Amino acid sequence: MDHRDILEKYKSGELELVDALSHFAKKGIEDMGFANIDTDRFHRTGLPEVIYSSGKTTEQVRLIAERMYLKGIDILATRATEEVFEAVKSVVPGAIYNALARTISYKRQERDDGKGYIAVVSAGTSDLPVAEEAVETARFLNNRVETVYDVGVAGIHRLFNKWEIIRNARVIIVVAGMEGALASVVGGLVDKPVIGVPTSIGYGANFQGLSALLSMLNSCASGVSVVNIDNGFGAACQASLINKL
Amino acid sequence: MDHRDILEKYKSGELELVDALSHFAKKGIEDMGFANIDTDRFHRTGLPEVIYSSGKTTEQVRLIAERMYLKGIDILATRATEEVFEAVKSVVPGAIYNALARTISYKRQERDDGKGYIAVVSAGTSDLPVAEEAVETARFLNNRVETVYDVGVAGIHRLFNKWEIIRNARVIIVVAGMEGALASVVGGLVDKPVIGVPTSIGYGANFQGLSALLSMLNSCASGVSVVNIDNGFGAACQASLINKL
Amino acid sequence: MDHRDILEKYKSGELELVDALSHFAKKGIEDMGFANIDTDRFHRTGLPEVIYSSGKTTEQVRLIAERMYLKGIDILATRATEEVFEAVKSVVPGAIYNALARTISYKRQERDDGKGYIAVVSAGTSDLPVAEEAVETARFLNNRVETVYDVGVAGIHRLFNKWEIIRNARVIIVVAGMEGALASVVGGLVDKPVIGVPTSIGYGANFQGLSALLSMLNSCASGVSVVNIDNGFGAACQASLINKL
Amino acid sequence: MDHRDILEKYKSGELELVDALSHFAKKGIEDMGFANIDTDRFHRTGLPEVIYSSGKTTEQVRLIAERMYLKGIDILATRATEEVFEAVKSVVPGAIYNALARTISYKRQERDDGKGYIAVVSAGTSDLPVAEEAVETARFLNNRVETVYDVGVAGIHRLFNKWEIIRNARVIIVVAGMEGALASVVGGLVDKPVIGVPTSIGYGANFQGLSALLSMLNSCASGVSVVNIDNGFGAACQASLINKL
Amino acid sequence: MDHRDILEKYKSGELELVDALSHFAKKGIEDMGFANIDTDRFHRTGLPEVIYSSGKTTEQVRLIAERMYLKGIDILATRATEEVFEAVKSVVPGAIYNALARTISYKRQERDDGKGYIAVVSAGTSDLPVAEEAVETARFLNNRVETVYDVGVAGIHRLFNKWEIIRNARVIIVVAGMEGALASVVGGLVDKPVIGVPTSIGYGANFQGLSALLSMLNSCASGVSVVNIDNGFGAACQASLINKL
Amino acid sequence: MDHRDILEKYKSGELELVDALSHFAKKGIEDMGFANIDTDRFHRTGLPEVIYSSGKTTEQVRLIAERMYLKGIDILATRATEEVFEAVKSVVPGAIYNALARTISYKRQERDDGKGYIAVVSAGTSDLPVAEEAVETARFLNNRVETVYDVGVAGIHRLFNKWEIIRNARVIIVVAGMEGALASVVGGLVDKPVIGVPTSIGYGANFQGLSALLSMLNSCASGVSVVNIDNGFGAACQASLINKL
Amino acid sequence: MDHRDILEKYKSGELELVDALSHFAKKGIEDMGFANIDTDRFHRTGLPEVIYSSGKTTEQVRLIAERMYLKGIDILATRATEEVFEAVKSVVPGAIYNALARTISYKRQERDDGKGYIAVVSAGTSDLPVAEEAVETARFLNNRVETVYDVGVAGIHRLFNKWEIIRNARVIIVVAGMEGALASVVGGLVDKPVIGVPTSIGYGANFQGLSALLSMLNSCASGVSVVNIDNGFGAACQASLINKL
Amino acid sequence: MDHRDILEKYKSGELELVDALSHFAKKGIEDMGFANIDTDRFHRTGLPEVIYSSGKTTEQVRLIAERMYLKGIDILATRATEEVFEAVKSVVPGAIYNALARTISYKRQERDDGKGYIAVVSAGTSDLPVAEEAVETARFLNNRVETVYDVGVAGIHRLFNKWEIIRNARVIIVVAGMEGALASVVGGLVDKPVIGVPTSIGYGANFQGLSALLSMLNSCASGVSVVNIDNGFGAACQASLINKL
Repeated sequence: MDHRDILEKYKSGELELVDALSHFAKKGIEDMGFANIDTDRFHRTGLPEVIYSSGKTTEQVRLIAERMYLKGIDILATRATEEVFEAVKSVVPGAIYNALARTISYKRQERDDGKGYIAVVSAGTSDLPVAEEAVETARFLNNRVETVYDVGVAGIHRLFNKWEIIRNARVIIVVAGMEGALASVVGGLVDKPVIGVPTSIGYGANFQGLSALLSMLNSCASGVSVVNIDNGFGAACQASLINKL
Repeated sequence: MDHRDILEKYKSGELELVDALSHFAKKGIEDMGFANIDTDRFHRTGLPEVIYSSGKTTEQVRLIAERMYLKGIDILATRATEEVFEAVKSVVPGAIYNALARTISYKRQERDDGKGYIAVVSAGTSDLPVAEEAVETARFLNNRVETVYDVGVAGIHRLFNKWEIIRNARVIIVVAGMEGALASVVGGLVDKPVIGVPTSIGYGANFQGLSALLSMLNSCASGVSVVNIDNGFGAACQASLINKL
Repeated sequence: MDHRDILEKYKSGELELVDALSHFAKKGIEDMGFANIDTDRFHRTGLPEVIYSSGKTTEQVRLIAERMYLKGIDILATRATEEVFEAVKSVVPGAIYNALARTISYKRQERDDGKGYIAVVSAGTSDLPVAEEAVETARFLNNRVETVYDVGVAGIHRLFNKWEIIRNARVIIVVAGMEGALASVVGGLVDKPVIGVPTSIGYGANFQGLSALLSMLNSCASGVSVVNIDNGFGAACQASLINKL
Repeated sequence: MDHRDILEKYKSGELELVDALSHFAKKGIEDMGFANIDTDRFHRTGLPEVIYSSGKTTEQVRLIAERMYLKGIDILATRATEEVFEAVKSVVPGAIYNALARTISYKRQERDDGKGYIAVVSAGTSDLPVAEEAVETARFLNNRVETVYDVGVAGIHRLFNKWEIIRNARVIIVVAGMEGALASVVGGLVDKPVIGVPTSIGYGANFQGLSALLSMLNSCASGVSVVNIDNGFGAACQASLINKL
Repeated sequence: MDHRDILEKYKSGELELVDALSHFAKKGIEDMGFANIDTDRFHRTGLPEVIYSSGKTTEQVRLIAERMYLKGIDILATRATEEVFEAVKSVVPGAIYNALARTISYKRQERDDGKGYIAVVSAGTSDLPVAEEAVETARFLNNRVETVYDVGVAGIHRLFNKWEIIRNARVIIVVAGMEGALASVVGGLVDKPVIGVPTSIGYGANFQGLSALLSMLNSCASGVSVVNIDNGFGAACQASLINKL
Repeated sequence: MDHRDILEKYKSGELELVDALSHFAKKGIEDMGFANIDTDRFHRTGLPEVIYSSGKTTEQVRLIAERMYLKGIDILATRATEEVFEAVKSVVPGAIYNALARTISYKRQERDDGKGYIAVVSAGTSDLPVAEEAVETARFLNNRVETVYDVGVAGIHRLFNKWEIIRNARVIIVVAGMEGALASVVGGLVDKPVIGVPTSIGYGANFQGLSALLSMLNSCASGVSVVNIDNGFGAACQASLINKL
Repeated sequence: MDHRDILEKYKSGELELVDALSHFAKKGIEDMGFANIDTDRFHRTGLPEVIYSSGKTTEQVRLIAERMYLKGIDILATRATEEVFEAVKSVVPGAIYNALARTISYKRQERDDGKGYIAVVSAGTSDLPVAEEAVETARFLNNRVETVYDVGVAGIHRLFNKWEIIRNARVIIVVAGMEGALASVVGGLVDKPVIGVPTSIGYGANFQGLSALLSMLNSCASGVSVVNIDNGFGAACQASLINKL
Repeated sequence: MDHRDILEKYKSGELELVDALSHFAKKGIEDMGFANIDTDRFHRTGLPEVIYSSGKTTEQVRLIAERMYLKGIDILATRATEEVFEAVKSVVPGAIYNALARTISYKRQERDDGKGYIAVVSAGTSDLPVAEEAVETARFLNNRVETVYDVGVAGIHRLFNKWEIIRNARVIIVVAGMEGALASVVGGLVDKPVIGVPTSIGYGANFQGLSALLSMLNSCASGVSVVNIDNGFGAACQASLINKL
């Protein structure tokens, strides 16, 4: 059945929409049995398919990375252990590991596609792994990034110290654990979109980041949106979309 | 102590930074005793001070609205009951009430300051109050808005029916209760920032919107960020900042 | 652009799949602005579009019911108050209200499309509203229904008293609040699929049905699946699909 | 059995400690059957017995207030409705009602027993009922109080505007809902004990104050302790103890 | 099929156990369609069937009470409103209402079947409705009851004041809201079983009794068991079983 | 006492129902002291007794497996580590281990007892362990199974790619973590029962699968029921019952 | 100050009650600096001081056990690892370890002080560690114990198989994980107090025993009380108090 | 731009407050790239910057400690493992490790700056790590500390035994896990501020300290405030501020 036939049958009611659709869906999929690489994703959403390593076996990550490499697709793997990196490196020679961010990246070419830069601001040194995941992701997505680290509200003058970097950014990612107040404070001072990333840093009634998550969701500063706990990757994805508008 | 003295004392260490600051802070505040209107907020953050009516007495809202009106400041009050509207109307003649959105607004002049338009997409008819709060807020902030209502994933072809409106938006607000899957589906199909607004619509294990909130925070589509449950206002604020970049 | 052009452009890559789709999606939607009735749903999923009244205004429900009536579509509205019923009745003369179940129904014709019957079993008298919602829905979907009420495990001999009804059903819906143990007990005794409906009946550490929900999800009897708290409607939908297999 | 006998029997092992105790316990109790007024509490803990009206019938509150009045004990009733106040006023002529704070108070004499004053700082106008409960309680406990209202972090310059009041206090109560960031910001700037009172103000993922509660418990500023949600009364009690040290 | 045939078929494997059972189960049930009164319950468990009024319509409670009355069964209805009482009274002339406890009771004869008495101890005046439900239930079950009210740990000497009543009980019910510490304190001082009843009294992070529930479940005193929040009825049931051992 | 005597005594009231029952209960139990194998379960419920290995010692699993093997009963052990498998293999020579699914199985004979096949659809590669547990269980229960893996809604065209497999199944198991939207999307497109299995895949506000669980329970598609988080086994049990109807 | 003086001063008001008390409190304490052994506990509460090993260092447990041994006090340590046992054994030669229950016990003499026996009933083999903790504790407290294991409601005939043991007990401990329905089923069939022990056995929405805990707290059988999750020790303590009444 | 220019521009409106601020913020920060040491914190808040080791790499802690040491700043690191201590010791020769408290401290000089002493009271031996963290912190902050350990309410006479230490303190820290009742009992007996520290000691429905946290937040004794679970450090910080008033 060629595309014309499908169409005719759909118009005459012989074929359901989804059945018709099922004939068009082959494009943009790299089928590996245990995984279907969405090779069309960048074209469609401006964000490429990325390997979320957690919950996958080392072998699975290696195979996906290899296939992408052979297809000429740039590679970003998040939540990757050192062991996973070694496996990937064996099939993707130029792969680079950021141990703090737990990311593996491989890019054929550096570019800056953004209209401005993304500022990644973090409250404490313990929040760095999440902040670095955001940085790695944003750079992989061809954005310029500036970082302002360890400027939590317990010593708010530290924030003002690097104010120019923050105020001149096109979009700001605020990474904070504990009570996550930094997102509100920054959000109350700038006229740029602020994306909050609550982290699981803290203990006790922090409940693995719930405290910072609720705090940011309830921010009294109105231009703040939030991504999942520890999700530096997701924040960078949205920041990248915004930076390229 | 004039400003020069303050400065000298600060430099010599006689005065703490915050104490010095306290002498400069009078600007941009309209002090009403029970309330301090932040008249500088728009200038600073691109978003004006808005009256969140819930938890305030009718009298308090009326007094704040009146003061803003007299100062020539445009007025938006959210979560306002009909009774509050009547009180405000008595002091702000041109105030308009949107009963579905529960907003009171008063603007001296309509404008379009955005680079594109904001699409507000909602999953079900029951989500309309939240969607309308987003619409009212976005328009108050001088944005053009298009709406696509009742296109939840249980009948996903309804979404495709108005696809052009969604794909051409500069930023998309997705309002959904129950399982909130619409945010992921839209996020997986567009290359624009998507802001999810979980609503408290549903029952049982919905837990007043927790279900949709967690769903959106865990979206497998990576360009999605989230605001608080039922917070159409906050989503519109961030969308407005993005639309004006 | 006619369908042929769309197709050509899609094939040549000028048009994205979803954009192409957007030209085909008009079928099966009754667009009312604030609502899009999915008139194709029954054909597609075996379950018709139903009006979930909660969160909708009386006026909205009335308008949707009227439109469905005029289009010759049978009507089921759940979570409907007496007031909503009065409004619907004014435009749908033959509409019937079940005050316990809070359902409005209107059917042109009674039928039995099932291969057997659905048994609705409830633990206590207080669970009847939910059980009756399941009964009304299952009958609306053209199933035969038998009921066994008030047979909770505190007096387990009551269950055995009506055992024949339960064992001869093709599929069994168990409605229970408090600790919801009835689902496990029934599930451990029959070779038919059991669908558990936890109810919000109880108090204290019942947490509006969470207790029964967790209980049923953790059932040690392995043939039990669960729907949302108080969701008699959803249980009947799945039971109907099973009964017609 | 007189006290000497009890003692002898306790020494000889004939009597258990608690049994011995039971002979000494009559002092400092005003037994009303349904209530035991702890007339010794002020002497023992520096804080008098206070009537928590919620959950008590109007009649019960009236009877307790009357008994205290007749015994010459000053009266503070919290969470009191207007109706309760009318009942109390009928038996305690000089009783005063603060409708915002929902407190009834009756004092024979004003005093200032503190070493300094207590600052009550609130984030938003909607937090006033809780802030006012703290103010009423602190004054009832013979403290001087200064208030700084509506200085939330979304417009942080408002905080600096009244900085002198805050920095000169002996102890500071910070009342805030939503994300409760104000407690951290104040705590990071002063060298006085800060007592945070999370409020239930907000909506959605605020979860009736849980958001602000967790935020304050996880404050990155280290001199902050916390009382229960909306517990202005408790905060004032501890502040009073501290102010009198 | 007579009982003998059933037996034969069961022995030969023609009949399943539960099917066989279903022929014997008619005894001890008063079938009312919407309710099955378990008339055998007292004989079987030492506790009669009791009407839990919440979630039942007034009409349903009236019909059940009437049937029990006509069958000569004593009646206890819990969580009953005044309206329900009026309906019951119209068919059960001697029925008595305890407005604080929200119980309706009707007994043909007073008796004391216990080996000792049950002490009901409550922490605050606001806990009285729950304490009184326990008292009414325990008396209905033919136990002698002594009460010790308003002796919470904030003024622990009040507890010692009535120590003799507590220490001489055969079993002790401790009713407490807020932090529920009274159960631990009593449990650490007596050699009798203590049954804790957490109440929903309190506010904020009390979470409708969760605080007291967790507190009692985690009691460091080891002879303490717990029933559901506000479940004075259940505590009295178990206390009655213990008192009659 | 033979069965006749028991019966006579039960009829005459000398014997309680449960006591009578206790004489009939020996059949269908393989008593091992620490375990009672329910050898009658398959006959009664259509589902055999299965060994849930978690929480049991390796020795216990080995002993149960050995006893089943010697009695000629087919064996399925879930949540089994490699170490447990080695122990089982030493007593059940033909036992097979699926390391991804963590299942041990031993069947004397392959069969297909279903009326159609079960489709197991999973959202991501990380969900495979749960999906494979479903597959192994369904096959053990003599069903034909087809799998569609890695078709999450972030790239919804992948779903349409294998649409025929899904639409032709008799019952569909949807396995998804993160926001679990796949269950709603599939449920909105098919007229077959869909059983959702939320997985614990994800991080942060996923809360070990709570996010996907709530999402599926609140599905706006009405023919969806749900089993416990990661419970591929339970989903397959119910799917098997349905597939054999 | 001798006891007489204290008394005089207390009577004259010179001394507070608690201060007076502090002079009498030395009795019944074995002070070890990091621990105060309550040597009077058995005399006071009928339950001796027991060593809860979790959270203590091996050295601390060893020192406490040694001191008790030297003082001639019988020893029970719960939640003890093998390593702790080795350390205790080095100072308490006759100490015995139950590896399943994780208890160390040392008794000088076996006795039966109960009026009947305690039945410990468990739902599954995986619940044995908790059941065995209850057994060890009950025996340590000089009770006779009978066990009925692996009789969960998925195969309810297994329960009836050992019915006589259950019905003849003076008090029954029911240990169950997953949905914990066994407590309700047993509670609905016996006229003895039932103490439920929820266990953390299960997975997913079991939430470490929360599911079984809520289930038991909400039991529709009214003579059931509950102890903490996995708290076999506490259940045995209360059962022992009841068994000795 | 010198300070005068900044000021002039701020006054003329050319410069925003925060931008002006950014020129003053350099003071009091030791910038290390991944960390900004707040060297002004002690001066500003009376509490020095402390190293929270959890979530930091050993290398990061070592570098921060070294920098502080070289700058002549006293060092306290909390939540430090033995490995971290070894690293710190290599660069800070006089550093001391308290293995129970998991703290590293280094002070040039011992002092007593308090007006009285801080009493640290703990309920059980298992609470010692948290109690010791409080003790170490309080001493580091130049306070005198007295300890009263293992005096939980299950044996309340142990508390009275050391009553004099408690009543003579200027401020009392109560450390307790399980049900945390000790805070209420102490709070009801003293006229000094009580700071409760809930600990994660316990199991089951303790939920990692939630039980004790809620208990303390809901304390019926009114002079009690609370810090985060296991946060001995924070409690000592506030106690120190109070002790120096």
